[in-house]
Amino acid sequence: MRITGTFLDAVVADIPSNNWGPRQWAADFDAMKAVGIDTVILIRTGWRDRTCFDSPALRRYYDLIAPREDLLSLFLDQAQRCGMDFWFGGFDSQQWQGDLAAAQHELDANIALADEVMARHGDHPALKGWYITHEIGSFHEGAVTIYERLARHLKSLKDMPTLISPWFVARRPDGKGMTPEEHEASWRQVFQRVSGLVDICAFQDGVCPFTGLSAYLEINARLCRENGLRCWGNVETFERGDVHLKFMPIDWRHLLHKMEASEAAGCEKLITFEFSHFLSPNSMYPSAHTLYERYRQWLEEAE
Amino acid sequence: MRITGTFLDAVVADIPSNNWGPRQWAADFDAMKAVGIDTVILIRTGWRDRTCFDSPALRRYYDLIAPREDLLSLFLDQAQRCGMDFWFGGFDSQQWQGDLAAAQHELDANIALADEVMARHGDHPALKGWYITHEIGSFHEGAVTIYERLARHLKSLKDMPTLISPWFVARRPDGKGMTPEEHEASWRQVFQRVSGLVDICAFQDGVCPFTGLSAYLEINARLCRENGLRCWGNVETFERGDVHLKFMPIDWRHLLHKMEASEAAGCEKLITFEFSHFLSPNSMYPSAHTLYERYRQWLEEAE
Amino acid sequence: MRITGTFLDAVVADIPSNNWGPRQWAADFDAMKAVGIDTVILIRTGWRDRTCFDSPALRRYYDLIAPREDLLSLFLDQAQRCGMDFWFGGFDSQQWQGDLAAAQHELDANIALADEVMARHGDHPALKGWYITHEIGSFHEGAVTIYERLARHLKSLKDMPTLISPWFVARRPDGKGMTPEEHEASWRQVFQRVSGLVDICAFQDGVCPFTGLSAYLEINARLCRENGLRCWGNVETFERGDVHLKFMPIDWRHLLHKMEASEAAGCEKLITFEFSHFLSPNSMYPSAHTLYERYRQWLEEAE
Repeated sequence: MRITGTFLDAVVADIPSNNWGPRQWAADFDAMKAVGIDTVILIRTGWRDRTCFDSPALRRYYDLIAPREDLLSLFLDQAQRCGMDFWFGGFDSQQWQGDLAAAQHELDANIALADEVMARHGDHPALKGWYITHEIGSFHEGAVTIYERLARHLKSLKDMPTLISPWFVARRPDGKGMTPEEHEASWRQVFQRVSGLVDICAFQDGVCPFTGLSAYLEINARLCRENGLRCWGNVETFERGDVHLKFMPIDWRHLLHKMEASEAAGCEKLITFEFSHFLSPNSMYPSAHTLYERYRQWLEEAE
Repeated sequence: MRITGTFLDAVVADIPSNNWGPRQWAADFDAMKAVGIDTVILIRTGWRDRTCFDSPALRRYYDLIAPREDLLSLFLDQAQRCGMDFWFGGFDSQQWQGDLAAAQHELDANIALADEVMARHGDHPALKGWYITHEIGSFHEGAVTIYERLARHLKSLKDMPTLISPWFVARRPDGKGMTPEEHEASWRQVFQRVSGLVDICAFQDGVCPFTGLSAYLEINARLCRENGLRCWGNVETFERGDVHLKFMPIDWRHLLHKMEASEAAGCEKLITFEFSHFLSPNSMYPSAHTLYERYRQWLEEAE
Repeated sequence: MRITGTFLDAVVADIPSNNWGPRQWAADFDAMKAVGIDTVILIRTGWRDRTCFDSPALRRYYDLIAPREDLLSLFLDQAQRCGMDFWFGGFDSQQWQGDLAAAQHELDANIALADEVMARHGDHPALKGWYITHEIGSFHEGAVTIYERLARHLKSLKDMPTLISPWFVARRPDGKGMTPEEHEASWRQVFQRVSGLVDICAFQDGVCPFTGLSAYLEINARLCRENGLRCWGNVETFERGDVHLKFMPIDWRHLLHKMEASEAAGCEKLITFEFSHFLSPNSMYPSAHTLYERYRQWLEEAE
């Protein structure tokens, strides 16, 4: 089971910039297509004070630096050129975690943003899904409120599937984190609230010790089934664990371990965060080039 | 307004080595010249126990490992070859912050070093300025004493302009740091002391949230005017913020934002820390290669 | 005195993966040979939950992810092809530090592993030494027990030399760490216990300020002589110190300083951690390519 989707990381949050212009982005879409990527998901329109395109709607809500290019249009057109589905992801101010008033402000801004994007790009043939960008690791009232209300609004704008990609708080060797049972209870609470509004959940899989991964993935798949969500896997292509450099391309053997664990747990589709830094022959990290080579070789051997 | 100056980073402090020999340094001076760099500033002769050339004078003050090459001569000659001005920067033991006795020791060592460099290279046609290497973020009695006495001595050796490039303690979203008003009061205290001795101040601009930058830059420019200093901008070419890898080449959009903010605030000249790691087509960081490409493209479009 | 040995880093511990397949590993053995490497040492069979080849013996002791390739066979064959000695290194669960029961479990697992490797590869012409992988910085009862018992068992399997490569706790400018005298007392305690069982000790040399290094290296050499061990140096090729990116290729001047200090202290042979990430023209870190170039140039000039 191969990776057929990737996030697109278009503003600097905690990962540095590849500094690509249109030429390099086009080459990277070609590289994605060559390994079977059919889905690209904008992980976020923006983060804190920066956005990847100009949004007058967002500027009414937040103090933003001037955008320098329109990566949203570029991504939509590249996705169309390569026959891929594009999923639109909203804005994350990193201020919504505090209280419900902050979450409401975040919700209002994201609704205004979606309205604007719909008006500009609603008919673009590549636009095929909504990604709700706000990430949590366990039940969080503010986030779940955003999920409920934003998903409802997005579906009213255009009836496309909605996706979230949360992390989770796995038990670690030091005894911290949630047991599988605690994890299950917390996420049941989330899924019961968003059932029918959020269509797909793709948990991040890098937050768990490798040998404990299957236990959590099986819970995730069961919770999705029970609540009517589809279960995808976000097979992260960067190394976590004890590695000091945060973050670098993952060891190929670790990636394969996680892909197999996701397939065994019943994930319907594998996506990744993310191709262009960590799995691309064009990445700023040379070990992504060799990871791409090894991944392609595996694909060829599997055929 | 383009970047026309860069620091030269010739010993390892907190940034790892490019491991360049004379051939690679010469190629990098060519790359600098191609984008209009006319000024190169040695950020420091040495740091803690290492120096970029042998200084018998310094060896009398500090325990140093044996120098392996003479990068000072190399830089002077490359600057001459490329028609650039070279500014000499002193030694930073990282021990001067403690008390005034430590600052006095640092001052004595830097005076001996400058005397030696003057004797060896005082007539080099590329030698055009003095850089005082000791960095502070707000008023610091030891540093200001060094600035006063060292600048006076340097000017007596050769009447060339003197430059400092401090950081500053901007207010951050968590409420820590100085308000613009506190910043202004602290730096007025510095500038009133060094007026007439330090000629130019180029504040580092990466220490501030992007959207708050202009407020500080305008204060900096006003303080310079009021105290008879010239105001340059040190438009840092590495990413700070939330990025885990400290430090990597900056996003091109962030660099452009900062360049425009510096120009708007009235900076007379833009320099950067620094070309060879973060903006160079020869850098050990591949995303510096793409940053250089995007910067050159912007220069060409501006012409 | 050149570096003639290197560790081989074949699973991800704290350093990210080069993501090499057989073709790239073969090219890297060629690059090692070109600079005179005659000894390759597997730093560890595995770490926590991962191994670089399948070991049914280890799987009886630890919960491991499925191995994806057999790097042990690959390394043995490459070493033979290039005329190098291969030293086998055991498994480090990172759980042995706690109490003596944990150390005993680690010992039992490593004995079972060695038996298995002996049965599979005992007659391989490249197999020439045993490396005991468990690293300490000062006397540690659990580790010393492992050293004693494992070394005895390894020698009974095949009479080859045994090697350890510990770190040490040097005094730092902040006053933390051991004085040379404290260091000597602690390691005398280790060496008196393992004398006759461990044949060679190659201390890691990156854990000490450069200017204080010689004092420790001289103690190390004397302690080795007094206790009948041979003294090698592990001249680390990555930068420690104040550098934020942990870890990057070392500055060539720092490497040369350490090589000379090791030679002066009387080290018989210099090995390094490790060629393939930090000194290789094939490394994922471009500054390793330039380090290799400078190192080769130095070798050529020395001939």
